[in-house]
Amino acid sequence: MNAVTPEQITRSALASFAGAPDGRTRELSNALIRHLHAFVTEVDPTPAEWMGAIEFLTRVGHTCQGARQEFILLSDVLGVSMLVDTLQQTEEDGVTESTVLGPFYVEEPPIAEQGSRITDSDDGIPLWVDIEVTDSAGKPLEGAIVDIWEGGPDGLYDVQRDLPEGEYDLRGRFRTDADGRVRCWAVVPVSYQVPADGPVGDLLAKTGRHPWRPGHVHFKLAADGFVPLVTHLFPSGDPYLTSDAVFGVKPSLIIELDEHDPGEGPAGREMNAPWKSLHYTFALSRE
Amino acid sequence: MNAVTPEQITRSALASFAGAPDGRTRELSNALIRHLHAFVTEVDPTPAEWMGAIEFLTRVGHTCQGARQEFILLSDVLGVSMLVDTLQQTEEDGVTESTVLGPFYVEEPPIAEQGSRITDSDDGIPLWVDIEVTDSAGKPLEGAIVDIWEGGPDGLYDVQRDLPEGEYDLRGRFRTDADGRVRCWAVVPVSYQVPADGPVGDLLAKTGRHPWRPGHVHFKLAADGFVPLVTHLFPSGDPYLTSDAVFGVKPSLIIELDEHDPGEGPAGREMNAPWKSLHYTFALSRE
Repeated sequence: MNAVTPEQITRSALASFAGAPDGRTRELSNALIRHLHAFVTEVDPTPAEWMGAIEFLTRVGHTCQGARQEFILLSDVLGVSMLVDTLQQTEEDGVTESTVLGPFYVEEPPIAEQGSRITDSDDGIPLWVDIEVTDSAGKPLEGAIVDIWEGGPDGLYDVQRDLPEGEYDLRGRFRTDADGRVRCWAVVPVSYQVPADGPVGDLLAKTGRHPWRPGHVHFKLAADGFVPLVTHLFPSGDPYLTSDAVFGVKPSLIIELDEHDPGEGPAGREMNAPWKSLHYTFALSRE
Repeated sequence: MNAVTPEQITRSALASFAGAPDGRTRELSNALIRHLHAFVTEVDPTPAEWMGAIEFLTRVGHTCQGARQEFILLSDVLGVSMLVDTLQQTEEDGVTESTVLGPFYVEEPPIAEQGSRITDSDDGIPLWVDIEVTDSAGKPLEGAIVDIWEGGPDGLYDVQRDLPEGEYDLRGRFRTDADGRVRCWAVVPVSYQVPADGPVGDLLAKTGRHPWRPGHVHFKLAADGFVPLVTHLFPSGDPYLTSDAVFGVKPSLIIELDEHDPGEGPAGREMNAPWKSLHYTFALSRE
């Protein structure tokens, strides 16, 4: 009896995709089979381990409902999202580094006024955001679209809190002024847990990992003729900066916040408690 | 600016799993990250391709409902199920080769009588199944449990046809007699398509692959002190023997059926049309 070998199975699987009509599809499926079969061959799973993987992926799929995207979260905690992001990064000097979009981005919120507040809540420490958008040589970009969003002092984003349709909290879209600047009132971000009550949370627990992310403010910046930039800023001092559950921290994105005493704050806001401010210049890469 | 590199992301992801309390979990997660990151790094997906993969996996998860297990089907068409099966195969000489369980196995059907019919339908060409179960030296095994199941002449298994709870069709469980034999009436299997109306079907279409499997009868054999064997037998002559969508064919599992004229058939069945018979000896591996 000439038994069929594992190598023959891999060769058959590779051959089955060799006729894909599109070149990129051929490339992707060939690489998928090579790496997937190499993984399986190396770990030689028991039937129970294989079934465990099937059941895990099925649970991840079933957990994807409404705003909850568990496969993005899985990609995040495996470092795949950051790897894709970093591989795509421009090599142009002087450009701000990117990081993951995350699952809480909302398309097309309405444009907000310069200097306005992105939350009606008084919870948390007020944060004056004052940023500039430039090209890689430092020239300000007028009319760039800047999305800003963050979780609240309770660690939750608005989309996790069932707000009425069309209402936003801690989320705003701005247009840069003639100096390339955007200013608004936000709150100092706090560290929070990624959703840990599903299969990805179980994976983290089983592998001895924590589900925390260091506090951060998200930015998405787009200007005509430039590569859109998706990134975060992380205030320094957070205990999870060195162990972000989704590997999103890059040293160039850690910033010091300025501290301010009570009194009159920017945009005419009367501050009766200490507040902070964030200053940063985002440099975009030309297309 | 010291930009973070793709290699650093991979190292961080590997480090995050290094503290998994269980050794096998550490081994599996380390290998997963290495192979998954090598795949992603090689293909350098665009953000749209990454999102396409997320959406595909989500659809596969959502398609898993009731008896439909789309992740098993995905594993099957990528050759992973057969690879796992073949890696686990015994190296004992003279043992029958295994193949995939497939998604249509049902646990614990009731024991059927020797010589009985596993379908009440008269559709298709009747097939007399006459098999023997032995150890690798050819000694018959009495009291072995043999599950036999197959799709019907319409290409569908009973679980795809919404039978009332507790009813079975083309599915039976038998106990071998003192000679290690099981005999029953089935039907000649026909080639059929794996479920192609979901995301896995879309993947096959996009990659220029067909969804056909060559006709086969499934067997699961279990005897005390022996490794359970899951396999199929494939009648020769099927056009899909060389391109099974799930890579399940092994040359040692292709058989010739004997042809018979109308007249009195086995187990006292009066045959008014030609019928066929299948004879095979399954040799199990000692635990």
